[in-house]
Amino acid sequence: MADKMKPRILSGFMELLPKEQILFNKMYDTIREVYESFGFLPLDTPVIELSEILLAKAGGETEKQIYRFTKGDNDLSLRFDLTVPLARYVAQHYGDLVFPFKRYQMSKVYRGERPQKGRFREFYQCDIDIIGNDELSLVYDAEMPAVIYNVFKKLDFGKFTVRINNRKILNGFFSSLGLSDKISDILRTIDKIEKIGRENVEKELAEFEISTGDIKKILDFVSIGGSNDEKTEALKKLGVDNEMFCEGVKEIEEVCGYMRNFGIEESYFTIDLTIARGLDYYTGTVYETVLDDYRELGSVCSGGRYDNLTEFYTKQKLPGIGISIGLTRLFSQLIDKKIISAEEMGLVDVLVVPMDEINSYVLNAADKIREAGLKTDVYYGSKGMKQKMKYADKCGIAYAAIIGEDEEKGKYITVKNMRNGEQKQVSLDDIKNAF
Amino acid sequence: MADKMKPRILSGFMELLPKEQILFNKMYDTIREVYESFGFLPLDTPVIELSEILLAKAGGETEKQIYRFTKGDNDLSLRFDLTVPLARYVAQHYGDLVFPFKRYQMSKVYRGERPQKGRFREFYQCDIDIIGNDELSLVYDAEMPAVIYNVFKKLDFGKFTVRINNRKILNGFFSSLGLSDKISDILRTIDKIEKIGRENVEKELAEFEISTGDIKKILDFVSIGGSNDEKTEALKKLGVDNEMFCEGVKEIEEVCGYMRNFGIEESYFTIDLTIARGLDYYTGTVYETVLDDYRELGSVCSGGRYDNLTEFYTKQKLPGIGISIGLTRLFSQLIDKKIISAEEMGLVDVLVVPMDEINSYVLNAADKIREAGLKTDVYYGSKGMKQKMKYADKCGIAYAAIIGEDEEKGKYITVKNMRNGEQKQVSLDDIKNAF
Repeated sequence: MADKMKPRILSGFMELLPKEQILFNKMYDTIREVYESFGFLPLDTPVIELSEILLAKAGGETEKQIYRFTKGDNDLSLRFDLTVPLARYVAQHYGDLVFPFKRYQMSKVYRGERPQKGRFREFYQCDIDIIGNDELSLVYDAEMPAVIYNVFKKLDFGKFTVRINNRKILNGFFSSLGLSDKISDILRTIDKIEKIGRENVEKELAEFEISTGDIKKILDFVSIGGSNDEKTEALKKLGVDNEMFCEGVKEIEEVCGYMRNFGIEESYFTIDLTIARGLDYYTGTVYETVLDDYRELGSVCSGGRYDNLTEFYTKQKLPGIGISIGLTRLFSQLIDKKIISAEEMGLVDVLVVPMDEINSYVLNAADKIREAGLKTDVYYGSKGMKQKMKYADKCGIAYAAIIGEDEEKGKYITVKNMRNGEQKQVSLDDIKNAF
Repeated sequence: MADKMKPRILSGFMELLPKEQILFNKMYDTIREVYESFGFLPLDTPVIELSEILLAKAGGETEKQIYRFTKGDNDLSLRFDLTVPLARYVAQHYGDLVFPFKRYQMSKVYRGERPQKGRFREFYQCDIDIIGNDELSLVYDAEMPAVIYNVFKKLDFGKFTVRINNRKILNGFFSSLGLSDKISDILRTIDKIEKIGRENVEKELAEFEISTGDIKKILDFVSIGGSNDEKTEALKKLGVDNEMFCEGVKEIEEVCGYMRNFGIEESYFTIDLTIARGLDYYTGTVYETVLDDYRELGSVCSGGRYDNLTEFYTKQKLPGIGISIGLTRLFSQLIDKKIISAEEMGLVDVLVVPMDEINSYVLNAADKIREAGLKTDVYYGSKGMKQKMKYADKCGIAYAAIIGEDEEKGKYITVKNMRNGEQKQVSLDDIKNAF
């Protein structure tokens, strides 16, 4: 016999055992359910796109990570996010879509990075976006955190905080100091303030040839504290003479107002002036979300507003706003840190265990349990009772429905609660109330 | 401004508009629901696999269709079905799985065929398989059609028929005639009998150097008619002196018995001795499924039993049985033939239409409707009433919840049925019963 091939997959690809997959799907379904409850419509674009279309904008780091190849005459690439395909889709199907176009897509994307802890080459992104035709109301900027609020309340990983900022505030502020070209350096440095301390941040900022006076202004700006209302008041009092800055402050104030109207508790969101997200992409409101008890996970849901989704494909101006949950990474982190566990997970509600032969009574009973809305497996193997119960146990099945001759004669089933071992006899006609 | 890139996708890739996608997802969810109700566990393997693993068995036509490429030092391929990844998965995680292992996977697979009508390069396969450790009860051969029965009853495309056969009957019969090496030629020819007639089939069979006597035996064999019971009786009376043949007849008789126990109506399944499926793969029961009113679609769900899933990866003997629905192809055919239509599809149940400003009353009402389990969109744009209603109409939304000053003062909402135009006022506390 020929040598066997050692079964394995490429590193950087998450593959789960059944119990973990059940838990993963539960999270996936919860997110999908909330997305749909807010009226987002499903979308499913191809994994493979034409390279010239997909990479119309990309460059640098992104392009190096792409899985790109030719097949026949075609130069093809696997999608590396769901935003570029959305832009292509909206431009392509513009005439057939109803605007504002609210869509969700929860699919795998591909990045051929060098594998490292917590980084995946194939991972799920769970995106929602709202695309306006020419204009898009500011209320949608508050609907995004409302969706986040509902998703993470339902996912139930404890208290979380949506951090909100507005790119106009950042751009306007740094423009007023004549530092527009240094925004990304400055923000990257400020981001380290908790780690390296204020003094070291000052030192690093000075290396970018920023004056001592400006450094003070910057640090005062990012240090603005207090409640959300106090922060917007403080921003107004800064006296920054820049139109964009003022517009940004007005917007964030309005968005916070709408967020309260959406019923988001004040303690679940905070204005955070250090948040920027992808610098050449977002143009207005931006978000990050942290789990309060697990800040080390970083942002678990991020996004923001952009002026023009489809600029590479059409002349129409289509502003949009969107957020994304990197589900594969989040799931993997939650498992690693034992915040969630798949050990007790099961999909099947009831295992039907035939004591003797598999006859119509057994299969009919299984059918009735299934009709009552319970996921029902039947053990057809010829193994002994002990083995069958072990199967139920290993699969995390909550109930066993034992059926032998006595049961058939008496037209009942014996239901065993696998958690506490309790048994009871239930009439076939009463199955709905048995579990 | 630079030239715009014309947005488009590669041919052979199905991409749907929202209403079609909603309909597609409804079918997808129905299949998933039935699969889970029978206790199949979810699985999600990588789209990209190592070529040497994925192609351990493949060759010929399959290999030519593969999307294969290198990235760094890795020779990679996109999966072309879900069975090879299952084999790899089961071999790799053997020690962590509970047997019999019942899994479903409903994912995209890739075949770089030349594009032609009805053929896709990216398509969903909806697979279930049950893998036994060393042995697998024959009852599972009947559970497969029971699942098919429930899936297509729920999908509701009218009457359908599961055609069932057993490879042992075929192999045994042709072996008894000394024609084992010609099975595939013979079956391909017989498959044309409805098209070209019995006489032409006889002629073609003669070209394979089959004697006139054997041709008669073959045609008598495949022409066996009557009820399922009559067919098995007729098979027994053929007097074929071959152990495998007799085993096959015994199996199909047993499987039919179990199918009846499963509650499958007799008119929904038929023994069809011409069905073989992939010749070098299946070893026992095989299935095809046709929609009675749309036979031209071909088999919409096929599969069968195999002796050893993982022979390329392990020495363990793991027999299995499985079926597959090619959902992308099925959906596309049903749409093309207008058997289903997405025109009336909508995801959102209620559109909240604010007459004046977006305030906490409006958003709170939306929240309450959502809490009542209804998918709820809110129109935040500043467009006029007519535009807002047009949006609801175009999106296929069943109800509009109109909220203005009067509604706020009176603590109610005005619900408009978009189908018949009827309006009624509903108290905020009574929203559960309003739709």
